[in-house]
Amino acid sequence: MQLKIYGDRKSGNCYKIILTTSILKIEHEWIEIDILKNETQTKDFLIMNQNGKVPVLELRDGKYLSESNAIINFLSLGSELIPNDPFDYHKMLEWQFFEQYSHEPYIAVARFISKYLGLPSERFAEYESKQSGGNKALTIMDNHLEQKDFFVGDRISLADISLYSYTHVADEGGFDLGKYPSIQAWLKRIENIDGYVRMYEN
Amino acid sequence: MQLKIYGDRKSGNCYKIILTTSILKIEHEWIEIDILKNETQTKDFLIMNQNGKVPVLELRDGKYLSESNAIINFLSLGSELIPNDPFDYHKMLEWQFFEQYSHEPYIAVARFISKYLGLPSERFAEYESKQSGGNKALTIMDNHLEQKDFFVGDRISLADISLYSYTHVADEGGFDLGKYPSIQAWLKRIENIDGYVRMYEN
Repeated sequence: MQLKIYGDRKSGNCYKIILTTSILKIEHEWIEIDILKNETQTKDFLIMNQNGKVPVLELRDGKYLSESNAIINFLSLGSELIPNDPFDYHKMLEWQFFEQYSHEPYIAVARFISKYLGLPSERFAEYESKQSGGNKALTIMDNHLEQKDFFVGDRISLADISLYSYTHVADEGGFDLGKYPSIQAWLKRIENIDGYVRMYEN
Repeated sequence: MQLKIYGDRKSGNCYKIILTTSILKIEHEWIEIDILKNETQTKDFLIMNQNGKVPVLELRDGKYLSESNAIINFLSLGSELIPNDPFDYHKMLEWQFFEQYSHEPYIAVARFISKYLGLPSERFAEYESKQSGGNKALTIMDNHLEQKDFFVGDRISLADISLYSYTHVADEGGFDLGKYPSIQAWLKRIENIDGYVRMYEN
């Protein structure tokens, strides 16, 4: 086995890698790291990624790569998931940076507080504070998808995979996807892609 | 004039573009957009970027690109600011995603609250909550720079430009750069690059 991936199957950031490697049929070894047991904070883990976050990719020469979007972009080099046109490629990056700055910090964090921490009262204000930013991100996506089947160009790219991961479970963070019909249609398009696999359910 | 850049000179995200275009001598027209006057929320601006954020790049064919790191990566295509090696290129992306997720939301936001909003009492708790995450990001950078002159490979890349922008003014967000000697040495290396320009001071 050449590639090792350290990840937590509960994490949408890690699911991006699962989806990408499934669509592209990339062989790898999966090493499960439990965020809730603080396994991202051990001495051994911090050698791989000092930031203490999954996912981490380990290459056969022992080099490490972190950040979910950097990893899927690297794994997809030369594949049909990356647009050939330079402008389209950078539009893909634009949506990936949007995902990390304007989407994930709201939707993924609200989901984590609700689904995995059980919405404890001391974090309820934080959970509520995430709703407006998450709905803003979903509105931007829904408007974009009114006119287009996928985020960049006319076929699936990593922009779709990056945004799909937490969007399709946004209801677990308290977001009502029923308000976003174009997103719902797009979710179905992604789920019909050859190689699609569902997220781990827990 | 072929390229138009819409930006606010007070913003570190916009300064990334100023620094990149100066180093690479890329001609462009700069259109100043004042965040504090809500000029990113006008109908005309939202047509360019529905997310209501600067910077925005407008190409001569009328296409728009948002997200500071996507823009500098596009503008630097084929230049010495982008590593040729595919792994190094994706390490550059890793650091740029780190910057947007684990650095900017702490350091840039603390700076904005303090320097531009005058640290109002109703945002003091938020300002204080940013200090720990910002210092974590600076510690990760300082440790990395103990061994290396630049973030990726042995010369400046866009990873350095992305991280330099808000790091060099982190003191304005309440962060003591005196605690990070390797960062201080790296800041000086960036400032000695041919084409370096200082950030707008206000």
